[in-house]
Amino acid sequence: LQLRLVCLGSSSAVPTRIRGLSSTALLYGNKTLIFDCGEGTQRALLRAGIGFSGDTSIFVTHMHGDHVVGILGILQTMSMYRRTLPCKVYGPEDLKEFIESAIRTLKFGLTYNIQFTKVEPGKVVLESNFEVWACKSFHSVESFAYRFKERRRPGVFNVNKAKALGIPEGELWSKLQHGKTVRVGGRKFRPSEVLGLPRPGRSVGISGDTRPSPQLTRFFRGMDVLFFDSTYGEKHKENAKENFHSTASEAAELAEQAGVDLLVLTHFSARYSRVMTLLKEARKIHKNTIAARDQMVIEVPFREKGRPRELTIR
Amino acid sequence: LQLRLVCLGSSSAVPTRIRGLSSTALLYGNKTLIFDCGEGTQRALLRAGIGFSGDTSIFVTHMHGDHVVGILGILQTMSMYRRTLPCKVYGPEDLKEFIESAIRTLKFGLTYNIQFTKVEPGKVVLESNFEVWACKSFHSVESFAYRFKERRRPGVFNVNKAKALGIPEGELWSKLQHGKTVRVGGRKFRPSEVLGLPRPGRSVGISGDTRPSPQLTRFFRGMDVLFFDSTYGEKHKENAKENFHSTASEAAELAEQAGVDLLVLTHFSARYSRVMTLLKEARKIHKNTIAARDQMVIEVPFREKGRPRELTIR
Repeated sequence: LQLRLVCLGSSSAVPTRIRGLSSTALLYGNKTLIFDCGEGTQRALLRAGIGFSGDTSIFVTHMHGDHVVGILGILQTMSMYRRTLPCKVYGPEDLKEFIESAIRTLKFGLTYNIQFTKVEPGKVVLESNFEVWACKSFHSVESFAYRFKERRRPGVFNVNKAKALGIPEGELWSKLQHGKTVRVGGRKFRPSEVLGLPRPGRSVGISGDTRPSPQLTRFFRGMDVLFFDSTYGEKHKENAKENFHSTASEAAELAEQAGVDLLVLTHFSARYSRVMTLLKEARKIHKNTIAARDQMVIEVPFREKGRPRELTIR
Repeated sequence: LQLRLVCLGSSSAVPTRIRGLSSTALLYGNKTLIFDCGEGTQRALLRAGIGFSGDTSIFVTHMHGDHVVGILGILQTMSMYRRTLPCKVYGPEDLKEFIESAIRTLKFGLTYNIQFTKVEPGKVVLESNFEVWACKSFHSVESFAYRFKERRRPGVFNVNKAKALGIPEGELWSKLQHGKTVRVGGRKFRPSEVLGLPRPGRSVGISGDTRPSPQLTRFFRGMDVLFFDSTYGEKHKENAKENFHSTASEAAELAEQAGVDLLVLTHFSARYSRVMTLLKEARKIHKNTIAARDQMVIEVPFREKGRPRELTIR
């Protein structure tokens, strides 16, 4: 399955000419997971060519307007297009009230159900092939970081071994590949006899607005890609402390300690018209770092043993 | 004073790649009047280079999300920039609850007061040099159309006449120009002796979402510029009736009957990737018609007697 990340908005607090408010889409197979929904998210989705009429889940990190106001337009547009499929929404308790009171005053009749889940630290979503976890983060209001974790995939199927064992090609191979024991003649064959070691699933972290913390370092251990709050550069590190945000260097330190592969700096203060300085500061600490820009797409391929991974960024 | 109109969003219901949701700015001297605030309005203001830290008033036509959600981002951004000046907000009764409940759940402390006025048909704003009026319009929920009307200006000062009458140049001329009677020697001079006839003020109408109606035709009589709901073309005129909107032709008929100078079609259904057909339909009925596009600027000069007016559109 394809795992694609799209930056929909990378500005903090207020939009700029080139950066919209916080939102990141994670596309996995036919599922769309949207992390935060700043004002303008539906239009950013449109620009990116990402539909949201299908299996869509929305995760909100915290109840600040620049991370959540855009959910109203998305929910309303879904109704205009006569959606019937439920839409899953995850976030702090107040998110429910925010949505309900807007539906009341704006009088948009929903054509579908909103399945709201109040987020608590721990497992938030459990699907057959992935999970989403939440962890408390450290901001001025209750806030959560999220982690997408694809399940381990079975090992590589060893065709030669299967043939040598006399297992006929076809349905039996497929069963073994999917972890089922099969019988040929009187003999049982277990998947482990023809499969390599299980291969790790892919993982993506989204910090939301936060100070760095040891809990988050643990939470994001070994992530393939991590979007982390980098509101400020070193020059304004006191602002980062005061406003419960992180600097690019702090994001890089956390990524380095957590053994993250690719760090994506995001949520830049509007004071920076260019973020090259922040990127340089971070790269001194964690080399594999990029700065988010709106509409940037990251394809996350599987990590194949012995081959350097090539993330495609465009 | 300069009177400038800026289209901030011209799409109905859902944004498109090139059109944002409803909003129109009217800039008059140092005042900014914003009519409707669809999602994305603050960014459209930014793109247009229109600040909103000064004397800003927001008028909402009706409580549908695509006309009002963007007010939250504007109000919040004003707080982030530590506004202290009150912000004036006009709209239907529910607008107050919408704003208050969002402020509650999104916990943004306002640094300034919102002066909310529940709109009723009639005069809504009375300033020394202009008025804003509201009129009930005809949509699926309570809705208002607005009209900006500059006060009459004094007539042109006749320098030769003033000199011939022996009135010395300077302060006395200024007083006369501002409508005050002056004395030179023992003699009184009234303004009418040196001024031409009062010149009409400029006027702009904003329909919001509505069917055409005789009331609106009266309300918009003689407007210099009229932004009117043109959600549909002739082909979808039944949709216009069903959804309480207007077609481009209906907008043009109303403009023609009302003696409007420039008609601006706006609020286009997202089904039209190009609106040339709508524009052609309207121009058959009211020649001086243009189609709104986002970031379009219209400068409205005074109407000088005997000279054709030149509106600048860019």
